[in-house]
Amino acid sequence: MPHTLVLLRHGNSEWNQKNLFTGWVDVRLSDLGKTEANRAGELLVEHGVLPDVQHTSVLTRAIQTANIALDVADRAWIDVRRSWRLNERHYGALQGLDKAETLEKYGPEQFQLWRRSFDVPPPVLDDDAEWSQVGDPRYENLADDELPRTECLKDVIARMLPYWESDIIPDLEAGKVVLVTAHGNSLRALVKHLDGISDDDISELNIPTGIPLVYRLGDDFMPLGPGEYLDPEAAAAGAAAVAAQGKK
Amino acid sequence: MPHTLVLLRHGNSEWNQKNLFTGWVDVRLSDLGKTEANRAGELLVEHGVLPDVQHTSVLTRAIQTANIALDVADRAWIDVRRSWRLNERHYGALQGLDKAETLEKYGPEQFQLWRRSFDVPPPVLDDDAEWSQVGDPRYENLADDELPRTECLKDVIARMLPYWESDIIPDLEAGKVVLVTAHGNSLRALVKHLDGISDDDISELNIPTGIPLVYRLGDDFMPLGPGEYLDPEAAAAGAAAVAAQGKK
Repeated sequence: MPHTLVLLRHGNSEWNQKNLFTGWVDVRLSDLGKTEANRAGELLVEHGVLPDVQHTSVLTRAIQTANIALDVADRAWIDVRRSWRLNERHYGALQGLDKAETLEKYGPEQFQLWRRSFDVPPPVLDDDAEWSQVGDPRYENLADDELPRTECLKDVIARMLPYWESDIIPDLEAGKVVLVTAHGNSLRALVKHLDGISDDDISELNIPTGIPLVYRLGDDFMPLGPGEYLDPEAAAAGAAAVAAQGKK
Repeated sequence: MPHTLVLLRHGNSEWNQKNLFTGWVDVRLSDLGKTEANRAGELLVEHGVLPDVQHTSVLTRAIQTANIALDVADRAWIDVRRSWRLNERHYGALQGLDKAETLEKYGPEQFQLWRRSFDVPPPVLDDDAEWSQVGDPRYENLADDELPRTECLKDVIARMLPYWESDIIPDLEAGKVVLVTAHGNSLRALVKHLDGISDDDISELNIPTGIPLVYRLGDDFMPLGPGEYLDPEAAAAGAAAVAAQGKK
């Protein structure tokens, strides 16, 4: 029996609408984002993909997405696990900045490096900066050196993969259909691992929002085939929209 | 340091509005119920009562209530635990029946006995009846003799208290502010235990919907004083409304 893993990227947030870098800043879904989450729930039902357990980041926009989608799918009652390890990439000193202004100020090369470089993080965010997460009660059990002040994708992989192994795989092993509701970069980190994408090629991968991506995994918890979006047409359009981001 | 326990009864559901016996039937909140949940979240914020962990039943109306209230209180990210042991009382063969019609058909004495007797359950619900929970995937891990076909309050206490001891007390012991979002009868069962209410007197206790009830507990996890509603005036009015239920 193959294992079933469902990945879901949260939909449009209030700061997506304002075109700001978000990272670990805890913004909410916009109305559009709620509609996307609703549609994700409908897709789960239409395709008979019914999660037995859900994993989310500790960011509200991912949690709202999972709550709405599972409510629509009549699966609000499944077990819930949350971890900061599924959070979006910490965007460092870019958090709270306007994407279009940043592009204009630093130029397209630097901008693209910060957005898509595998191992070059943005500048560090000061602990006393407005959008710092230092002191946020949801991270109080993290050691100070575990709490990021900036991250590149490589850093995200380093903190996400241990959770995949310690918490998600055991649920798959128990025969559960697992839903992971998270973010553009934490999901890119997971897909990079699953699909064996190289450090160079991962920059080209864009995961659309609000469309469940279903993997069937073998006994080694690696894919038996390519992941499948439950609405491939919308997924292709969504990925293109993500790729165009920042170009306001 | 006293421990803090917050009890929250879910708000108005679609079947409350239709005046039907609900029990384990998994109906949703009405718009009024969502408004009540919203208000509960505001009350938590206004009084600085910020849960660190939430426990719910596996019924959607309680889960929706907790999701909404915690979202409003910016605590969507706290840990979540769910159990069928926090479910509403199983109403047996009354599930799905109109309360006013039932009152008329069986008379006020029998009606009140089913609603408020400590140890007389309603007639058993057949496994193949429309509103039976036999075969519901959320109960697939229960032994057949654990899945109720009807319950009196005494039965609810018998299946709820083990969860209080095994799952809720450990969270209190760890110093967490615990939110329990559940139902009229599972919360009456818990309050009966906490306040040492007799089997006779518990019939008079009505818990209003949507108003957080806060207990400070000592090292024995018993109350240091009476539980306090965060909106005492609304709570008194709400309790009176619950007492008048069924008298359409």
